[in-house]
Amino acid sequence: MNIIDIINKKRLGKTLTNEEISYFVSGYTKAQIPDYQAAALLMAICINGMNDDETFHMTQHMMNSGEILSFENKRSICDKHSTGGVGDKTTLILAPMLAACGLKVAKMSGRGLGFTGGTIDKLESIKGFKTALDKKTFMDTVESVGLCVASQTEDIAPADKKMYALRDVTATVESIPLIAASILSKKLALGADTIVIDVKCGSGAFMKTIDNARLLANTIIKTGNRMGRKICAVISDMNAPLGYAVGNALEVNEAVQTLRGKGPDDIIKLCTTLGAALMCEMNNTENFDHAQKTLEESLKNNSAYEKFIEFVKAQGGDTSIFDDNKLIEINSTCYDVISDKSGYVQRINCEQIGSASLAAGAGRSVITDNIDHSAGIVVTKKIGDYVKSGELLAQIYSNSEQNALEARKKVSLAYDISEKKAPRQQLIYEIIN
Amino acid sequence: MNIIDIINKKRLGKTLTNEEISYFVSGYTKAQIPDYQAAALLMAICINGMNDDETFHMTQHMMNSGEILSFENKRSICDKHSTGGVGDKTTLILAPMLAACGLKVAKMSGRGLGFTGGTIDKLESIKGFKTALDKKTFMDTVESVGLCVASQTEDIAPADKKMYALRDVTATVESIPLIAASILSKKLALGADTIVIDVKCGSGAFMKTIDNARLLANTIIKTGNRMGRKICAVISDMNAPLGYAVGNALEVNEAVQTLRGKGPDDIIKLCTTLGAALMCEMNNTENFDHAQKTLEESLKNNSAYEKFIEFVKAQGGDTSIFDDNKLIEINSTCYDVISDKSGYVQRINCEQIGSASLAAGAGRSVITDNIDHSAGIVVTKKIGDYVKSGELLAQIYSNSEQNALEARKKVSLAYDISEKKAPRQQLIYEIIN
Repeated sequence: MNIIDIINKKRLGKTLTNEEISYFVSGYTKAQIPDYQAAALLMAICINGMNDDETFHMTQHMMNSGEILSFENKRSICDKHSTGGVGDKTTLILAPMLAACGLKVAKMSGRGLGFTGGTIDKLESIKGFKTALDKKTFMDTVESVGLCVASQTEDIAPADKKMYALRDVTATVESIPLIAASILSKKLALGADTIVIDVKCGSGAFMKTIDNARLLANTIIKTGNRMGRKICAVISDMNAPLGYAVGNALEVNEAVQTLRGKGPDDIIKLCTTLGAALMCEMNNTENFDHAQKTLEESLKNNSAYEKFIEFVKAQGGDTSIFDDNKLIEINSTCYDVISDKSGYVQRINCEQIGSASLAAGAGRSVITDNIDHSAGIVVTKKIGDYVKSGELLAQIYSNSEQNALEARKKVSLAYDISEKKAPRQQLIYEIIN
Repeated sequence: MNIIDIINKKRLGKTLTNEEISYFVSGYTKAQIPDYQAAALLMAICINGMNDDETFHMTQHMMNSGEILSFENKRSICDKHSTGGVGDKTTLILAPMLAACGLKVAKMSGRGLGFTGGTIDKLESIKGFKTALDKKTFMDTVESVGLCVASQTEDIAPADKKMYALRDVTATVESIPLIAASILSKKLALGADTIVIDVKCGSGAFMKTIDNARLLANTIIKTGNRMGRKICAVISDMNAPLGYAVGNALEVNEAVQTLRGKGPDDIIKLCTTLGAALMCEMNNTENFDHAQKTLEESLKNNSAYEKFIEFVKAQGGDTSIFDDNKLIEINSTCYDVISDKSGYVQRINCEQIGSASLAAGAGRSVITDNIDHSAGIVVTKKIGDYVKSGELLAQIYSNSEQNALEARKKVSLAYDISEKKAPRQQLIYEIIN
């Protein structure tokens, strides 16, 4: 076997065999195949696609490139993944809710890059919180607390790590089979039996259209099922930030408020939908409404919040910052973004909001950038809201005036306001299992 | 401007601007753009193509990446290029013929790689022959002798050199716009006013079909004309080796015999066709038959042979080896390939013959391989010939018995012999200008 023949085959739009995909994944992971050959193959895959068999084999070999975790009682272990959005603090809320309902959430997460945030960065806004856990601590914490969120270790799907870094700089990210293989190879290696995927769709997501979102969801479900796991997907809107806060500490605070029963409707709805879909998938029932009520109850009776505090404490976080209904202190200057016209918010370019948050200091352009946990955006108007000229649209939190002004410009441009009434955006498009 | 956006644009099948192509070519040549990004872009170009404008800009920027030669009397300077075949010794014969007819041939040439040979390797079979000439010596020799054949210097189209090396290992060679840009960027930098392109077509050529050969010819002509040069193309057959000899010294000897008036019909026909097409293009006449007769005359009256001897001497070659009708001595062992059946030769897999010659020691698998100038193949039967069982099909020349046996196997397999009469192959398919 020879990598040039494999690249050539995909260039001509032919189907790669299991052996050829294995040869590529293992050769590239071991650096026997250089970046330039991998880049050529990935571009050919991007343009000419992969069928279900190829996607399955790619996922399998990427997963097997590293360590595979195996829980003793696999049955109740679940995981949740989002394809990435703006202001998406779902994990911080849903994971304690699920744990409060008796499930065990084993989640490894990434850091933010570009306009999307990462759960690990958000959690690190909490003083003392440790995300770099060894395998044993991770698994023990899942068993004892009912949830653990750790940063992804080097040993999990190293093939994905290497391929993703290359795709990022060669314009080969946008490939549904490659996105599916990337997500699943990591998730499946972590040993969860049931996984819910939140496929974001809209201006602040990688999937801009419902068709692409549906294709990705189905590809992930089909491939995951073939690997013997239970997978379901929710396609949810990402044409506006989820909730109001974008940025690490700001999002943790909004999550904590939600767990205290004072959260925005869209966040609560998305969390209970994702959670109920997961519970139905895990228990093979269709009693979605009952599952959703159980989850809502965990917010009302404070059990989810208590689980959150237990979880933060278990991972070394200083929970005294949340005592007496307090929140993380935001150590940055606040700049107002004022509307210069009156009317209804028709659209928000959500990618622009993410990009503004990045400009304010909350994100990374390249993986080595430092982030400012107290930076970010709080929007005050969402799609369908009426705003008067001179009224507040959003607030920028930043420790650099220059960056804040750049962010303010982006936020202003992101809002499309006009006289005609705008219907409120649908939040949940589809649940697929 | 940003290379990731440029790659993304071509991935989506959009048209690149002049500025974007310039940014890529200059960035890659200066190693500011890494191989993996270039590989991704080249694969996207391979699959999604380039239009006439893009091909023109790519050619122009590749040409301008290095030195451009400029002759004082540009008008009479010509060049000839072959897309590469098996046993193609045309340059060795045609260049002296053209010079004998008063044209000036300025040719820089490459070395052989894979199953195709290179003129520079062939000329180096002649003791003392120097191909590494500086720019001034090259141009002076063209003016004084009427022809010069040098190895390509580092300064000519360095962008092509770098891109070709990358394409070779990333399965991105087969792209008509990239092949056209690669050929033209080098040829146009050498300053010739009129160029004839021999587009080989068939089992021993890169272009396997007449449609692809025609597309390549037209792309080269269109692009070259737009750069202000006169270009014509001949599509010629490469389903059998040209002449009988394949391998460096063996081919020089066959070329010398042709110049002495004792050459095979197919070689003479191809040389006079290419030469006449070039002369008509240069002089804007359509008197093809007259041009062809003039060229034939140069063989009959020995003037082309005398020009060849003058050319070899001018480049330091020992011409005494050709005294008294002698030829280069072949210092290798000869192994017969015997037919095991009777019938007409229906087909010869010409790429296999090239590959056999490479196995015998005449070629290179990678550019750093050493070659054996005395190794090669002499076929004795061509398509349409009748052969009896036990009769000679070909002879292998090699200094390694093991390699000779491998070559013999390949040659045997290359021949397709059966009872039914096979029509002789057409040699010239089309002349395009």
